[in-house]
Amino acid sequence: MNQDVLLHVINPNSTASMTDAIGRAARSAARPTTRLLVQNPANTPPSLEGTTDQALAIPAMLAAITQAERDGARAHVIACFDDPGISAAREIATRPVIGLCQAALQTAMILSTRFTIITTLPRAVPHIEDLAARYGVGKSCRRVRAIDCPVLELETNPDAAMRKMRQEIARAKTEDSAEAIILGCAGMVEMRAPLSRQYGLPVIDGVTCAVLQAEALATAEFLTSTIGASAAPYAKMPCPQAHRIML
Amino acid sequence: MNQDVLLHVINPNSTASMTDAIGRAARSAARPTTRLLVQNPANTPPSLEGTTDQALAIPAMLAAITQAERDGARAHVIACFDDPGISAAREIATRPVIGLCQAALQTAMILSTRFTIITTLPRAVPHIEDLAARYGVGKSCRRVRAIDCPVLELETNPDAAMRKMRQEIARAKTEDSAEAIILGCAGMVEMRAPLSRQYGLPVIDGVTCAVLQAEALATAEFLTSTIGASAAPYAKMPCPQAHRIML
Amino acid sequence: MNQDVLLHVINPNSTASMTDAIGRAARSAARPTTRLLVQNPANTPPSLEGTTDQALAIPAMLAAITQAERDGARAHVIACFDDPGISAAREIATRPVIGLCQAALQTAMILSTRFTIITTLPRAVPHIEDLAARYGVGKSCRRVRAIDCPVLELETNPDAAMRKMRQEIARAKTEDSAEAIILGCAGMVEMRAPLSRQYGLPVIDGVTCAVLQAEALATAEFLTSTIGASAAPYAKMPCPQAHRIML
Amino acid sequence: MNQDVLLHVINPNSTASMTDAIGRAARSAARPTTRLLVQNPANTPPSLEGTTDQALAIPAMLAAITQAERDGARAHVIACFDDPGISAAREIATRPVIGLCQAALQTAMILSTRFTIITTLPRAVPHIEDLAARYGVGKSCRRVRAIDCPVLELETNPDAAMRKMRQEIARAKTEDSAEAIILGCAGMVEMRAPLSRQYGLPVIDGVTCAVLQAEALATAEFLTSTIGASAAPYAKMPCPQAHRIML
Amino acid sequence: MNQDVLLHVINPNSTASMTDAIGRAARSAARPTTRLLVQNPANTPPSLEGTTDQALAIPAMLAAITQAERDGARAHVIACFDDPGISAAREIATRPVIGLCQAALQTAMILSTRFTIITTLPRAVPHIEDLAARYGVGKSCRRVRAIDCPVLELETNPDAAMRKMRQEIARAKTEDSAEAIILGCAGMVEMRAPLSRQYGLPVIDGVTCAVLQAEALATAEFLTSTIGASAAPYAKMPCPQAHRIML
Amino acid sequence: MNQDVLLHVINPNSTASMTDAIGRAARSAARPTTRLLVQNPANTPPSLEGTTDQALAIPAMLAAITQAERDGARAHVIACFDDPGISAAREIATRPVIGLCQAALQTAMILSTRFTIITTLPRAVPHIEDLAARYGVGKSCRRVRAIDCPVLELETNPDAAMRKMRQEIARAKTEDSAEAIILGCAGMVEMRAPLSRQYGLPVIDGVTCAVLQAEALATAEFLTSTIGASAAPYAKMPCPQAHRIML
Repeated sequence: MNQDVLLHVINPNSTASMTDAIGRAARSAARPTTRLLVQNPANTPPSLEGTTDQALAIPAMLAAITQAERDGARAHVIACFDDPGISAAREIATRPVIGLCQAALQTAMILSTRFTIITTLPRAVPHIEDLAARYGVGKSCRRVRAIDCPVLELETNPDAAMRKMRQEIARAKTEDSAEAIILGCAGMVEMRAPLSRQYGLPVIDGVTCAVLQAEALATAEFLTSTIGASAAPYAKMPCPQAHRIML
Repeated sequence: MNQDVLLHVINPNSTASMTDAIGRAARSAARPTTRLLVQNPANTPPSLEGTTDQALAIPAMLAAITQAERDGARAHVIACFDDPGISAAREIATRPVIGLCQAALQTAMILSTRFTIITTLPRAVPHIEDLAARYGVGKSCRRVRAIDCPVLELETNPDAAMRKMRQEIARAKTEDSAEAIILGCAGMVEMRAPLSRQYGLPVIDGVTCAVLQAEALATAEFLTSTIGASAAPYAKMPCPQAHRIML
Repeated sequence: MNQDVLLHVINPNSTASMTDAIGRAARSAARPTTRLLVQNPANTPPSLEGTTDQALAIPAMLAAITQAERDGARAHVIACFDDPGISAAREIATRPVIGLCQAALQTAMILSTRFTIITTLPRAVPHIEDLAARYGVGKSCRRVRAIDCPVLELETNPDAAMRKMRQEIARAKTEDSAEAIILGCAGMVEMRAPLSRQYGLPVIDGVTCAVLQAEALATAEFLTSTIGASAAPYAKMPCPQAHRIML
Repeated sequence: MNQDVLLHVINPNSTASMTDAIGRAARSAARPTTRLLVQNPANTPPSLEGTTDQALAIPAMLAAITQAERDGARAHVIACFDDPGISAAREIATRPVIGLCQAALQTAMILSTRFTIITTLPRAVPHIEDLAARYGVGKSCRRVRAIDCPVLELETNPDAAMRKMRQEIARAKTEDSAEAIILGCAGMVEMRAPLSRQYGLPVIDGVTCAVLQAEALATAEFLTSTIGASAAPYAKMPCPQAHRIML
Repeated sequence: MNQDVLLHVINPNSTASMTDAIGRAARSAARPTTRLLVQNPANTPPSLEGTTDQALAIPAMLAAITQAERDGARAHVIACFDDPGISAAREIATRPVIGLCQAALQTAMILSTRFTIITTLPRAVPHIEDLAARYGVGKSCRRVRAIDCPVLELETNPDAAMRKMRQEIARAKTEDSAEAIILGCAGMVEMRAPLSRQYGLPVIDGVTCAVLQAEALATAEFLTSTIGASAAPYAKMPCPQAHRIML
Repeated sequence: MNQDVLLHVINPNSTASMTDAIGRAARSAARPTTRLLVQNPANTPPSLEGTTDQALAIPAMLAAITQAERDGARAHVIACFDDPGISAAREIATRPVIGLCQAALQTAMILSTRFTIITTLPRAVPHIEDLAARYGVGKSCRRVRAIDCPVLELETNPDAAMRKMRQEIARAKTEDSAEAIILGCAGMVEMRAPLSRQYGLPVIDGVTCAVLQAEALATAEFLTSTIGASAAPYAKMPCPQAHRIML
């Protein structure tokens, strides 16, 4: 067991202020002896609001993971609720890779029998529904709701976002009979404390859950499997030439 | 965040030597500052090898959980791979309750794309398959295998058990293309270290995973939901009289 | 074929008046030549409104099943809609064991393409949803509704319960397009007759369905399987000493 | 409750000797006071070995059901393991309609945790797998096996069929860990008694299960729903003219 | 590759005007070089509004398919949204058989992440839900709605039908967050063009999708499998005598 | 209807010879009047054998799709059996986007009741299983097999690949009762013709299926939905600065 570990928290979008907020939440979740490398790459979309945004952010995120592992990181947190590129990250990393969505869902499955996820934009709902289905939550996830607020407005207009969040939590309790709430966006990380106090039910944010899970697996020195579909791709030389034919 | 917590680990069967082994594994998984109350009740079956054995052990286990919470426990681990009585435990506890099977499956879903569970008796296979289905692992769990060895023989004849375990792991790698192995019985907890070194793939035991998860959730002061199906049952006075009619 | 059989109907809670009502319903469902042993144990919760209540009732229920089989019972009905302890009962019984929920769902699948279950308390809804999922009803079960009335009030305030039940049936017809209704509590057994006449759709109660199924299987001398996960647990000596360590 | 009922058992194929065997099994399953109308239509295929055979048999079967209900039948058994036309039969009948496959599966779910179905031809396997999936048996059905013997040879060469059946049961026990066996063809109905005695596990035939279920539901005067998708189609005048255009 | 093919489009009901409308849609979907045999049988129900109507239409439809294949058809379209008899048709045909529902669902899965199906009568909803489940659309199909209008009124009162359709599309956009609409009845084929222009989302009709798919598979000379459950039933002589016994 | 369309076929890896083979297959599947733009980007991995390889290829592939649409492409084929980046491609494209895996599975569901997929490397098996599950094929896909041959060896050592493929097809017929075979890699496209002739069952390759589907949808002028999760991401300015903190 290794009680003094370095965790790598990568925000795949390029908004530094969101990285800072994620860092504060990670710091407050982790043990004092745990060191945190928290970062975001350059030139990725400033928020990931769809699978295209994700696709454009993943290569830089993978490079950061490879480098962080060389620098001694014992586990990685992908700090975006869509868990972008998590399969690829697990191929290249030898240390555990934790996604916010998977960690939050696993926690909600422990703390409640039925829960609701509340995210930012309605367009994210089908994607999160599909993730939840892939992670096997079944009927435990009553519903995925959206506050209809772009990710970046969580910072620029936090009061409006909080007001809409309160409305959706109230609806989740009465309409969905939700016993717990998952905050479905890394940008919502600072909403957790005030909401938990107010509503008398667990309010779960993915950053806290993922950092805790990463720290635990790193301490126990668990490793990602390196065989089968978990193996790293073998090195191949890309062809530097595009090829285009009209037939 | 509370870095110095008391965890309650309850072995629901009444075999003290198994409780001791679980305690050793729990101690080595937990942080030095974490205190552990590890116990088993009296008069429950000495091993839980079916749903009847479980049913007979659950009332005493629930009483122990209630008492441990009064004594300051911040999270509970049910140290049996069948997760017996976990729904009831979550009704009566206000702190998180972690089951070995759920914790091991959640870990395996993070560390691999496909894994195999290896348990003791063939009769446990359908029950574990059903648990895995309820926890939503889908095709990630390739197969549940059994070494055909009663739980108590893990202690009385450890060499034979280890030999059969090695055979099944070898089969899991070739026949199931398993990328990780879950040890499907609390009594297998001390097999983890030697097997991990040998096979080059993650060998996951539920005690370690559950203690880590319990410690993490306790540290973050997560609570079990207390509304809906997660609420405690209201107090009712049992009728002391049996009633029997022939019609 | 054996046309003259003894059936065992066990109400696992300790409310004798509910046992009597179940007995009346069982008697009116069974053939005149069928004898019925209807009973409840002492000291179990007076109503089972959650998995804790169930856990506390199951050991006494299992003892009653073992004894009834010695007394000649040819099939057993667990007269509670949650089907508590049904797997354990099937391990220890050699005769068929029928649960109210499973029997009612099997009947509803024969009589309709879509149905709604109406139970007592909202807290029971997730548990019944999970049972229905395990029994494989899929989309045939449109919804599980609750009349928000504790089990014991079905007896103490039957008019209010009936009024709320009528409201929910009306909603099930219009909102759920339900073609049949399942009464989701053993305590609702006497509502069936008046409701069936009124609503022009099958109203299905579990006691009737389970008694019919038990009688049929007993007559044909079907036995529960005694191999694999259906085998009885082998006898083991419980340790009379609790064990508790602080680590 | 009506203890003296008329049941209608319809073999949709046109082989009278199979109808006689089905009649014998039905008679031995039913109560002495139950009357049985057992029949097959003219001009349908002599065995139903695929969905085409089924399609050609269904219209005559539906006509027989309508007529039997006019003649006082209180429930109908479709005596073919493929449950052909069961949805249509439930639209036009007001009394319960029971299929062999559904009845056998419901019984197997009560008597065991895992079972195997053994049918005649390999080509029937996917169809029965799909039926089992639709009825929601999930992992409880371990496997659908075939003895590779056409339906009509069950009569013309019973010894060979029995020999192959014994081989498949032996394999189901060892390879599938089956705790019960379902005979997956109405023509296998007379195999049940000798096989049950020999193998020490429940051998379930659909005719017995369906007759018992039909008798039970008829006695309790259950009716098929007549609303929604369970309603009879409204009468419409077919156009006597075919229409054909080349475009 | 064969660019000049004959497609067979069979409307299984006996309403010639609906066959004509289907023919017009098929003609406008197909390539100029593709020839179309569009027809309906005599004496089948004038509309298929339930599984009984389907059952009565299938034998004549199968005969038409067999004959069309002799006449050179290279693919078959069953022009009814319930895909009646499609398994049987695939047994007897050697060329591909396409159903409207399957083709429309496959198209909707390509063009959107979430869609809603809108059919005629509420009684068709469970049947279409079951079809969609069998075709594996999962949560992609948000809901099956009905405009509550019998099939034949689509022709006799098209304005009322169109008005109700517009209401349901509006609800599908706001309540279901549908990104595409499937018209769930062959009789709605001429609604597609005006609705697509108006609502700014894909409006998918099964006739167009199925004709395109049939033409593509015919061109590439794909054949239906002829082994296993896809094999034609072997020829058997029906017994011309009905058989009826009272037992 | 537009009978003369431009299709865009994008091979996301950077191996020009594979692009040429895909182009030949696409040309032979398409109608003479259909024009084909077939290309691969520069600097992507030379074969996509895992989710990392995919992640690195997707951004360039998305750029090619955007440009091809500006150049008049009416539909896009992603010519890799993993369907990499297909959700993102559907967000940014207004024309239909077809993946090889989805197209092949849709075709196999039409031509057979049970089929087997045969791919290159064992490590691809879990990924293809997950894709098949997401596309909803259920039990129709009997198994995903691998010939244990890297993608690029399909070109460098075609005889060995063909020999192994023949072995796996033979096993799929006997062990899986497969009625059709899907070739699970774009690099296998030229195996289709010889194998179809030999084995007497449909051999389905994704390139042919996807080109046919793309051509059909393009001809009918279907468009990808542009609302909800199908909408294009709104334009956002990436931050050119990476951000990295140690906490």
